[in-house]
Amino acid sequence: MTAGGAEVTLVTIDDVEAAAALVRTTCVRTPVLELADRRLPTPVWIKAESLQRTGSFKLRGATHAVAALDAEARRAGVVTYSAGNHGRALAYAARRVGASATVVMPDTAPPAKVGATRALGARVVIQRPDDIMSHAGILAEEEGRTLVPPFDDPHIIAGQGTVGLEVLDQVGEIETVVVPVGGGGLLAGVAAALKARRPEIRVVGAEPELAGDLAEGFAAGEHSTWSRARTTRTVADGLRAAAVGQLTWEHITALVDDVVTVSEEAIVSAMRSLAASTKIVVEASGAVAPAAVLQHGQGRGFGLTVAIASGGNVDVDAFASLVRG
Amino acid sequence: MTAGGAEVTLVTIDDVEAAAALVRTTCVRTPVLELADRRLPTPVWIKAESLQRTGSFKLRGATHAVAALDAEARRAGVVTYSAGNHGRALAYAARRVGASATVVMPDTAPPAKVGATRALGARVVIQRPDDIMSHAGILAEEEGRTLVPPFDDPHIIAGQGTVGLEVLDQVGEIETVVVPVGGGGLLAGVAAALKARRPEIRVVGAEPELAGDLAEGFAAGEHSTWSRARTTRTVADGLRAAAVGQLTWEHITALVDDVVTVSEEAIVSAMRSLAASTKIVVEASGAVAPAAVLQHGQGRGFGLTVAIASGGNVDVDAFASLVRG
Repeated sequence: MTAGGAEVTLVTIDDVEAAAALVRTTCVRTPVLELADRRLPTPVWIKAESLQRTGSFKLRGATHAVAALDAEARRAGVVTYSAGNHGRALAYAARRVGASATVVMPDTAPPAKVGATRALGARVVIQRPDDIMSHAGILAEEEGRTLVPPFDDPHIIAGQGTVGLEVLDQVGEIETVVVPVGGGGLLAGVAAALKARRPEIRVVGAEPELAGDLAEGFAAGEHSTWSRARTTRTVADGLRAAAVGQLTWEHITALVDDVVTVSEEAIVSAMRSLAASTKIVVEASGAVAPAAVLQHGQGRGFGLTVAIASGGNVDVDAFASLVRG
Repeated sequence: MTAGGAEVTLVTIDDVEAAAALVRTTCVRTPVLELADRRLPTPVWIKAESLQRTGSFKLRGATHAVAALDAEARRAGVVTYSAGNHGRALAYAARRVGASATVVMPDTAPPAKVGATRALGARVVIQRPDDIMSHAGILAEEEGRTLVPPFDDPHIIAGQGTVGLEVLDQVGEIETVVVPVGGGGLLAGVAAALKARRPEIRVVGAEPELAGDLAEGFAAGEHSTWSRARTTRTVADGLRAAAVGQLTWEHITALVDDVVTVSEEAIVSAMRSLAASTKIVVEASGAVAPAAVLQHGQGRGFGLTVAIASGGNVDVDAFASLVRG
């Protein structure tokens, strides 16, 4: 497979299985819970990564990336850029092995996410949203730190793919798995795991309509980028990436069956339904895949479906305001 | 052991293990999650029975009681009286085996709990709070149904005790387990399991101050009953029982180390902390044991502690109102 003339190697099931062995002591096996909703004839299975340590699936990829460092790189520490969950996850994963972590965060990040990252011992550097990536690169060079990108990296993709392995083990007779998309690391990894083991399972990406860059690009067969001003409008702050990565795009075009979008109202309605029926607190981004099942599951014949609730990091007051009827 | 001159047989570890085998296909093994809170030096482990099917631990006892019915009793159906979670659980357990269930509920029960019980196919009969128990007895006699009491029954106690077996398997080095108390079925069962297997673990009951009948009686060494007018004041609607049962009292006096009470403010604060840190939705009753750890854990030297979050059945709007800062 080629992209821009260069050979691209996709993450394999062996990579994901190796990652599973490496992340097992740091990450928990999250439960699969039932979401019953009057809009659906049968319950949806929710893979509750909101109950993962650090509050999101991002810990899997970050732990795997840290496990790949040699002793010297571990001593020099890591750096990343993140609006929230990846930075928090990397801070936790680095601390587990005694490495220092620096997280460059945008000045638009929710205070709860900044505070939680600092509480895990990381140095947080605040920059304007457009500058976080380049600033992380500068710190990597100046301080000799390893840059751990949030999604466009084979270790990250393989780590996130461990969610797919668990789902296969936890639910029988799956017909469709729905995965939220920001930069595409979770979708790429889960697709790599599922399509290797059970190619007949339909793998569907889910995005907010207001950050629908992948849905547009997937339909057109072209890697699409939206402006940040456009994607910032969605309540799903974890999915505001302006585009999926190059490596994640290659996985998605090769392995994913469909990409759907959901309205802002559907996201909030799913948060409410997850609180009422499933008894879990999810952030808006974490409700996007369940929302896609509620909005599209019957019309598109999803059948027995697992939706990944990717994270739960939301200010309690903001959560309470959103889910009030 | 004697009570009122009669021989009392306590539930044994064999009874609890037999119950575990019988409830396994209906009840899920709920996860143990971390509650981090700045008031505590180390996280508390939360046994999240709020994520149990039907939203509470009550499904364990109800399933065990239904499993004990012979074919004829199963055909005649079951009846109970309940303000909420036990009735819902019995409705679910009965439906799993094709038996009919009638639940007598007080006219003070939250609408969400009445609706959920009906949605599970049970007949709901509404009575004044003082009449639900006697009315269930009348229906049992008139209709030949087996009365499945909410707590004061060896099958129920053994079923609830399966929570204790799971906790032992899920967490190492436990020093204290804190269990919420209404009628005392969960506390009796968990104590029976823990004290048989690991007698050095401290087992602590937790009640709202406003429904502190057991704390008062436990301190005095006398089975104490409060008026319903008094216990109705607590926000923890699942723990408003005016007294623990006779059989549960015998277990508690024989096996439990301490009973503590928590303020209403501490209950709501724990609900908020469980949403923010643990990412779960619990009803007020479900937050009472975590609240007890937050309020008393350090002062009383609980050490490594597991607190049982017993249920998550709360109207989402009510939940949102309670947890707003």
